[in-house]
Amino acid sequence: MSILRFDLTTKDWVIFAPDRSRRPRELEAARASSAAPPGPCPFCPGNERLTPAEIYAVRSGDRWRVRVVPNRYPVLRIEDEATRYEDGRMFQSMGGCGAHEVIIESPDHDLSLAEQPVEQVELVLATLHARFNDLLRDGRFQTIVVFKNHGETAGTSLRHPHWQLVATPVVPRLLRIKHLVAAEYFDATGHCLYCDILEAESAAKARVIASNDQYVAILPFASHLPFETWILPRHHESSFGRAPRDRLGALATLLKQVLAMLNRSLDNPDFNVTLHTAPRGDEDKKYFLWHLCVLPRLSVPAGFEIGSGMSINTVLPEDAAKHLRELAA
Amino acid sequence: MSILRFDLTTKDWVIFAPDRSRRPRELEAARASSAAPPGPCPFCPGNERLTPAEIYAVRSGDRWRVRVVPNRYPVLRIEDEATRYEDGRMFQSMGGCGAHEVIIESPDHDLSLAEQPVEQVELVLATLHARFNDLLRDGRFQTIVVFKNHGETAGTSLRHPHWQLVATPVVPRLLRIKHLVAAEYFDATGHCLYCDILEAESAAKARVIASNDQYVAILPFASHLPFETWILPRHHESSFGRAPRDRLGALATLLKQVLAMLNRSLDNPDFNVTLHTAPRGDEDKKYFLWHLCVLPRLSVPAGFEIGSGMSINTVLPEDAAKHLRELAA
Repeated sequence: MSILRFDLTTKDWVIFAPDRSRRPRELEAARASSAAPPGPCPFCPGNERLTPAEIYAVRSGDRWRVRVVPNRYPVLRIEDEATRYEDGRMFQSMGGCGAHEVIIESPDHDLSLAEQPVEQVELVLATLHARFNDLLRDGRFQTIVVFKNHGETAGTSLRHPHWQLVATPVVPRLLRIKHLVAAEYFDATGHCLYCDILEAESAAKARVIASNDQYVAILPFASHLPFETWILPRHHESSFGRAPRDRLGALATLLKQVLAMLNRSLDNPDFNVTLHTAPRGDEDKKYFLWHLCVLPRLSVPAGFEIGSGMSINTVLPEDAAKHLRELAA
Repeated sequence: MSILRFDLTTKDWVIFAPDRSRRPRELEAARASSAAPPGPCPFCPGNERLTPAEIYAVRSGDRWRVRVVPNRYPVLRIEDEATRYEDGRMFQSMGGCGAHEVIIESPDHDLSLAEQPVEQVELVLATLHARFNDLLRDGRFQTIVVFKNHGETAGTSLRHPHWQLVATPVVPRLLRIKHLVAAEYFDATGHCLYCDILEAESAAKARVIASNDQYVAILPFASHLPFETWILPRHHESSFGRAPRDRLGALATLLKQVLAMLNRSLDNPDFNVTLHTAPRGDEDKKYFLWHLCVLPRLSVPAGFEIGSGMSINTVLPEDAAKHLRELAA
């Protein structure tokens, strides 16, 4: 069972999920979450009995094409409540209320997202979209954190390509900061900060790597990581959940293109994809623009970054963008 | 030459240090900062000519015992100015003004800090203390970030044990948050948040792993990482720079003890040590208590943590503390 604890020094909640390490008192335990379990792949067709009961699937005939199951070692659970506990003024906790789902990208164990046909990428995005909106119906959840880990240094434990959704009972720090900063900017200017950034980057051109009618891919001016890439809608849209279903094909096309560019330029790097989107209740507001972040894992954060919270980036985004465009041409 | 850029979406400054990757357009480049350079160790006695000119040293006779040199690939430079540039409203930069020093712990290439005699650990801490205070004399520097990377997964590029100091022209995000939260707590209560935490943890006992007359080591209630350990002074002291020199022996004793406990329990893990201390100008204020954080690198942050800023910890600190105390007994 998980629990959340409040860090009084940063005003963050930390999730404690001791069940995710099977032998919590030993070294192996602390490392367990990144170790691959032995045995057959639970995400391959024919092994469906190895996963918890299916939540959702897209099928062709009697075969599934995308499949959603609960994570076997969930960081948060739908059965738990977000009850608050206080042990003195200094020790505040909350029940591990939430959800943790796995979206299996396709029946194919070895094909990466960049190698899938664009129709399959669209099915994956449509599945994320459907699950995102369904989870938001549960009023206890403040945020749905959507992400993908590709490769061992990006935190993957199972090789079969998949995404994950974690519904949280509080708004996590980075999302809270991005929402507050964007809301403040809107108050001061009447503009969406991300729409203004997209306009400025489109005019500057140097950091745009690809685009289509609906979406644009940029390496932002103040990227925190080398080759960090954002994909944003051209038209204002606060929440991923409000993206029209018929535009997800264009998103799939651009995401596949971006991943192929990064793979070619960086020799198939490990990477994460994350989603930043408006919080529950602000889906119709004007201040935020949802976006996907593709984050290649090329360097290890060290003491400076961990101790200060400040990023060091060794590659200017316009240099990285030029390289990506040249290789793609 | 480095430059800082302002991230409008988080109000963070990002350091761009393209000189740290020698071939900035290639994959090897983006990875260069974590790769060990070939050739003899520049930190070993006899190879002093391989480092930039010495800044400071502690000597016994004609031999140095601790040596401070500029980092050969500095993320920020003392020669640069913190001049601000604005290219339109959306693109703000600042010159890469700062300093980046390396503190070579001892002449010994293979002996880790935990294996050094306590007198040598004290010399290292006294050297950090002296350099910290000297760098703060430069009014352009807002913060001195002090850290140590031990092992490859913690970001070490040179094996010979060393610490680093980076002086920054702005206050980095995590430090800014910790200062603001602590100042707010002080305004509301008249107490130092960290002194209150230390008092509550000392009363609860479960997460205290070691202490002496001057310092206490705890695994905080809302630890972000498994086995995360803080060392705090027993008596209120805002800035590490104001720690009395004659107490650094007690700090050395406890730091060595904590590292030995972690090494024994976790089979010599890679780790970082970081320092959190009051910002320039607040050295005499009552709201902050400086502390060292020892952070074993047992797991890889994945898409959830990177995308949301929220931590998942698989080991409860009281379980980790019990394990550390039992093994030490």
